[in-house]
Amino acid sequence: MPESVPRVVIVGGGFGGLAAAKALKNTPAQVLLIDRTNHHLFQPLLYQVATAVLTPGQIGSPIRGILGRQQNTTVVLGEVSGVDKDKNRVLVSSADRAAVPITYDFLILATGATHSYFGHNEFARFAPGLKSLADAVAIRNKILQAFEQAEAEEDPRRHRDLLTFILVGAGPTGVEMASAIATLIRNTLKSEFRRVNPESARIVLLDLAPRVLGSFSEDLSAAAKKRLDDLGVEIRLGQGADHIDADGAIVAGERIGSKTVIWTAGVAPSPAGKWLNVETDHAGRVCVQQDLSEPGHPEIFVVGDTASLVQGGRPLPGVAQVAIQQGRYAGKLIHRRITGKSAPKPFRYFDKGNMAVVGKGFAVLQSGKIHISGFLAWLAWAAVHLQFLAQSNLRVSVFLQWVWTYLTGQRGSRLIVNHYGPDRAEQPVEEVPSDASKSVRA
Amino acid sequence: MPESVPRVVIVGGGFGGLAAAKALKNTPAQVLLIDRTNHHLFQPLLYQVATAVLTPGQIGSPIRGILGRQQNTTVVLGEVSGVDKDKNRVLVSSADRAAVPITYDFLILATGATHSYFGHNEFARFAPGLKSLADAVAIRNKILQAFEQAEAEEDPRRHRDLLTFILVGAGPTGVEMASAIATLIRNTLKSEFRRVNPESARIVLLDLAPRVLGSFSEDLSAAAKKRLDDLGVEIRLGQGADHIDADGAIVAGERIGSKTVIWTAGVAPSPAGKWLNVETDHAGRVCVQQDLSEPGHPEIFVVGDTASLVQGGRPLPGVAQVAIQQGRYAGKLIHRRITGKSAPKPFRYFDKGNMAVVGKGFAVLQSGKIHISGFLAWLAWAAVHLQFLAQSNLRVSVFLQWVWTYLTGQRGSRLIVNHYGPDRAEQPVEEVPSDASKSVRA
Repeated sequence: MPESVPRVVIVGGGFGGLAAAKALKNTPAQVLLIDRTNHHLFQPLLYQVATAVLTPGQIGSPIRGILGRQQNTTVVLGEVSGVDKDKNRVLVSSADRAAVPITYDFLILATGATHSYFGHNEFARFAPGLKSLADAVAIRNKILQAFEQAEAEEDPRRHRDLLTFILVGAGPTGVEMASAIATLIRNTLKSEFRRVNPESARIVLLDLAPRVLGSFSEDLSAAAKKRLDDLGVEIRLGQGADHIDADGAIVAGERIGSKTVIWTAGVAPSPAGKWLNVETDHAGRVCVQQDLSEPGHPEIFVVGDTASLVQGGRPLPGVAQVAIQQGRYAGKLIHRRITGKSAPKPFRYFDKGNMAVVGKGFAVLQSGKIHISGFLAWLAWAAVHLQFLAQSNLRVSVFLQWVWTYLTGQRGSRLIVNHYGPDRAEQPVEEVPSDASKSVRA
Repeated sequence: MPESVPRVVIVGGGFGGLAAAKALKNTPAQVLLIDRTNHHLFQPLLYQVATAVLTPGQIGSPIRGILGRQQNTTVVLGEVSGVDKDKNRVLVSSADRAAVPITYDFLILATGATHSYFGHNEFARFAPGLKSLADAVAIRNKILQAFEQAEAEEDPRRHRDLLTFILVGAGPTGVEMASAIATLIRNTLKSEFRRVNPESARIVLLDLAPRVLGSFSEDLSAAAKKRLDDLGVEIRLGQGADHIDADGAIVAGERIGSKTVIWTAGVAPSPAGKWLNVETDHAGRVCVQQDLSEPGHPEIFVVGDTASLVQGGRPLPGVAQVAIQQGRYAGKLIHRRITGKSAPKPFRYFDKGNMAVVGKGFAVLQSGKIHISGFLAWLAWAAVHLQFLAQSNLRVSVFLQWVWTYLTGQRGSRLIVNHYGPDRAEQPVEEVPSDASKSVRA
């Protein structure tokens, strides 16, 4: 390849960044994809890692494995800390030395979002959110540990608190987590513990909004709510967490004792807006033009969760489909510009629909005028999610795991693992029954 | 169950402990199995997690999942810190409160072994060993990270050190790791990196012994050595690591620069001997009687890697088969004693044979007079290991992964994941190519 080909730098290996890189496959350019992790994360299934259905390896694919054979593309493991628009370069930082600059001719920022505690960062310690594989494994450890501790706990109040799970936020993640925890208790753990049973567990799902799954139609919200009721999930609408600490949460003035509070509420965009020092929306997302470029900088594009684009009077939602379509658009636009073709039509999001799982074999699906809930929607959900997994071996392995879990109730990865110390329990068992007759029910 | 049934306490959920618990399935007793992790680890495949073939979830099975339906058995997550033989109780410790005593009528210690640095514990920081899932994930991170850093490293010396892997100890683990790393580079990573290629990688396998796989016959040692030669592994026999630090190792007076030194040498038994305050062999293993009990304490049994028993003039090796057969024997003996039957014959180890993998589709197998090496031995190895996996779903998933990896070279779990922080690289990329023309070879 001649040295003179332009360089396209893509920051972020999520849905948007990967789609952009793939769209540039046949472009006479040097494509550089920078990510601070070595893997693309299939976020829609992250809750299944947190609830021990899938292993981290089933939803994390090495970015090199996906793009390795794309000859014009180089994958770089590094963390971007800023953009110098005057000199056309991004700064890649590392802990122990000064940031290294990488120059670009075209730049695509696809840096996603993280969770937001809405100004209550002190909640983070007690109520982890779910955005990375590390988060998912930490939450899985927390949930499984709570059951282990409850099994050994003689004090009734602490036993109850250990079996109380609070989900703050009833969007798709909150609903999926709440129903997955309920299914875990009912189908998987029931027969394995001697002193823990489904009746003694309490799952509280709360949201300030008046209904669950607020991004869906009202009939589907109602279907999801009924299903959650059937699973025994306690739904508290119009209520938020006023306070969260190590002993639980205060909800609408009432203290709910719990050892497992999970934050499934807000998201905040990446600092791309700060790097570019441009206009952002109220949430901090970069306001892009109709071709996804930064106003005044036709060589800089922002896509996915960290971009803000109004279409049909409403801002586009922070979902995988928007990121994929935007990434692909930005890649194609750059391809056309490099190959001397005319500019494409403005970006137009095609909404394929929206889905959420509510426990075993049940989902809600909304696509245009189609609203369905139940087993058929779940099958559609499973098919679509398998299709979008990045690697074919993962499709097979996730499919088999789902069939297995559906038929037997067994989960794929119920490990409590501390990956930076011995694999023992983080917090050792609180109390062990010292009397033979008490600890065996049979 | 009446309150008066005897209690059997088993410490350790490895091969020995599990076999003992299963042998007590129909015994009128209360069985309590204590482990400091929630999972049984299938150690013979641990090197495949460390080299990214399998995920942790494929070789770790929740102990509750295995024993949950065994009605007379309770699983306790906790760490044993001592045994009080006078009061017939074990002490289960936790970080934040005093140790809780658990009384027993029969005790089986199946607490295994850890790795030993032969008095050089200062090596541990630089040369991790391979005993737990945490170890395996840490080593996997280290290996994958070395390739990522090498890809971005401009300095030739550091580039070379990043691609040099030293395995200290040429027993089964060392040989399996060395050949698996060689295969990883040749079959999986080759096409995905731009500046890393198999020719530039160096794998050094050293041992003080005069041959690799010292526990096998000489012909099989030679076959394994030839195979390792073919894979490009540099074998140094009669040489040990005099010194190990962050920059590599000093081997027979020569410094070998390396960022990845892995300790595959010695093992040391658990502190069971200290807890019991009894006679141990030179390695610290408890010298047990022919029925695996402690001399003078017919109610205490020690099995597996932490027990020492001479048979046919030689101490039994620290392998899974010995632990399984001993655990089963101890369980059956206790069953007979509780049900009033006569004592069984002394324990007799039946050696089914010994196997080790040397790269893709090649193993050595020794069973009695049968010595084979090559593909057939590898098929036998695969069949036996699949058979011994604790859960049937894992058998299917590991089988499919092996077929997939064999056919495509793709690995199952090439994730660099820090499970206690964001999923970014532990040590960020050292340097990033700042010039377009240099970083793309095409």
